[in-house]
Amino acid sequence: MIIIGEKLNGSIPSCARAIAARDEGYVKDMAKRQADAGAGFLDVHAAVKEGELEALEWMIEAAQSVADAPIAIDSPDVRAIIGAMHFCARPGLLNSVSLEGGKIDVAFPVLAKPENREWGVVALLNGEGAITKTVAERMEVFGRIMAKARQYGIEDCRIYIDPLVEMLCTTDDGEGALTLLETVRQIRAANPNVHICGAISNVSYNLPARRLANQAFAVLAIGAGMDCAILDPLCGDLRGAILAAEAMMGLDDYCAEYTSAYRAGIFGK
Amino acid sequence: MIIIGEKLNGSIPSCARAIAARDEGYVKDMAKRQADAGAGFLDVHAAVKEGELEALEWMIEAAQSVADAPIAIDSPDVRAIIGAMHFCARPGLLNSVSLEGGKIDVAFPVLAKPENREWGVVALLNGEGAITKTVAERMEVFGRIMAKARQYGIEDCRIYIDPLVEMLCTTDDGEGALTLLETVRQIRAANPNVHICGAISNVSYNLPARRLANQAFAVLAIGAGMDCAILDPLCGDLRGAILAAEAMMGLDDYCAEYTSAYRAGIFGK
Repeated sequence: MIIIGEKLNGSIPSCARAIAARDEGYVKDMAKRQADAGAGFLDVHAAVKEGELEALEWMIEAAQSVADAPIAIDSPDVRAIIGAMHFCARPGLLNSVSLEGGKIDVAFPVLAKPENREWGVVALLNGEGAITKTVAERMEVFGRIMAKARQYGIEDCRIYIDPLVEMLCTTDDGEGALTLLETVRQIRAANPNVHICGAISNVSYNLPARRLANQAFAVLAIGAGMDCAILDPLCGDLRGAILAAEAMMGLDDYCAEYTSAYRAGIFGK
Repeated sequence: MIIIGEKLNGSIPSCARAIAARDEGYVKDMAKRQADAGAGFLDVHAAVKEGELEALEWMIEAAQSVADAPIAIDSPDVRAIIGAMHFCARPGLLNSVSLEGGKIDVAFPVLAKPENREWGVVALLNGEGAITKTVAERMEVFGRIMAKARQYGIEDCRIYIDPLVEMLCTTDDGEGALTLLETVRQIRAANPNVHICGAISNVSYNLPARRLANQAFAVLAIGAGMDCAILDPLCGDLRGAILAAEAMMGLDDYCAEYTSAYRAGIFGK
């Protein structure tokens, strides 16, 4: 499982305060702890109304000063994401693009440049307008995103498909998370190389004991073929459940990774 | 999820001491706590070398004096199980039978009697001799068990198939729990009425942080179609993960059961 650490995010109140006060210690501490816990990427989202590029530059530089994990530049503004690529010491991820507002047609030509060929991109399965509701709609968007990737010569393994994790508490008619899980299953069956990357904690909004709902969702999504997740790498129970699920899916012979992660204190302590 | 509470088991040292000392308080306390936590059946396993029937009678009477949940009479000796049916105040489960040693041909005629028509039975998927290793072998045994059930006129919904949960830590070659999960999936596809019942904690023998491995396994098994489990109903995290998984599989609209179980203190406190 590729883990994108979600803790450097201005939507989290303590992080917003750190950004406003330019509290470098906060960013460095959170970057180092997530990287030490095995985050493959550090998500960096400023969530400020003005001066987003400056805030991203400051956050990215602080994070990079203590951790080697590449950055997932996170913004609703694709131009801010592209602008922030220059602050990154090593290739990371653009988080995120979609067909909406032509973001893909802005980002993919940048990714296609030879100097950016090690960058990846998170692509959401929503369409040009409203959010896609059915598996068929999401698979149709998936097909169009992959066609665009091929048009620009971007290899499948640089694409991180976000299948749109929605909150569970409002679902009815036997829906649950079945649309999401079936979308993941169909993407994995259609393409073994693309990454499938979900924002785990979206599922548990407004539920009690969110950590248990997050764990159950991550486990089911791994069972369906998800191989990447945006999550809190410091949550030991979630990490342990994910490693156990991978072992059950035949991805960890003799539970060697599960056992070493336990010994390293990643979970269970 | 139908839960068979596993705590009244002489293989657990504290329970063995309680059985040896005929400590009724221990049995009553464990029976009541499991039933209060929502166990649909209380497993009762004496695990004594001599006097099994007397031990079962004492355990069952103590349990029934404080809890209405029916008993799952658990013994390797099918004659002891049948002998103990008379101690039960209400119909429960025979746990377990298999094709091995002709146990099914002893138990099914008893279940076929009109006065026993509300009793159910746990049937293991091992064959006459060695344990079955492949999905195909287990499905072949499943077919033979169901043929026997029909021969004796035992309805599908009285059969609780145990698909043989094995320890994960020794699996290699990408196996994981895939045989188990695929067996569950195929049984569910073949028969919507039979119950599928696994001993959850078998999966985590010799692993650290067993509770996380148990949770991950229960969630994946629910995703595959398991609807019953032998487990510790007092383990709140496991109960919460199971309820969350059921909501994700579309079995709990608006997460109503998940939320009420949380409010009732079943998990998350």
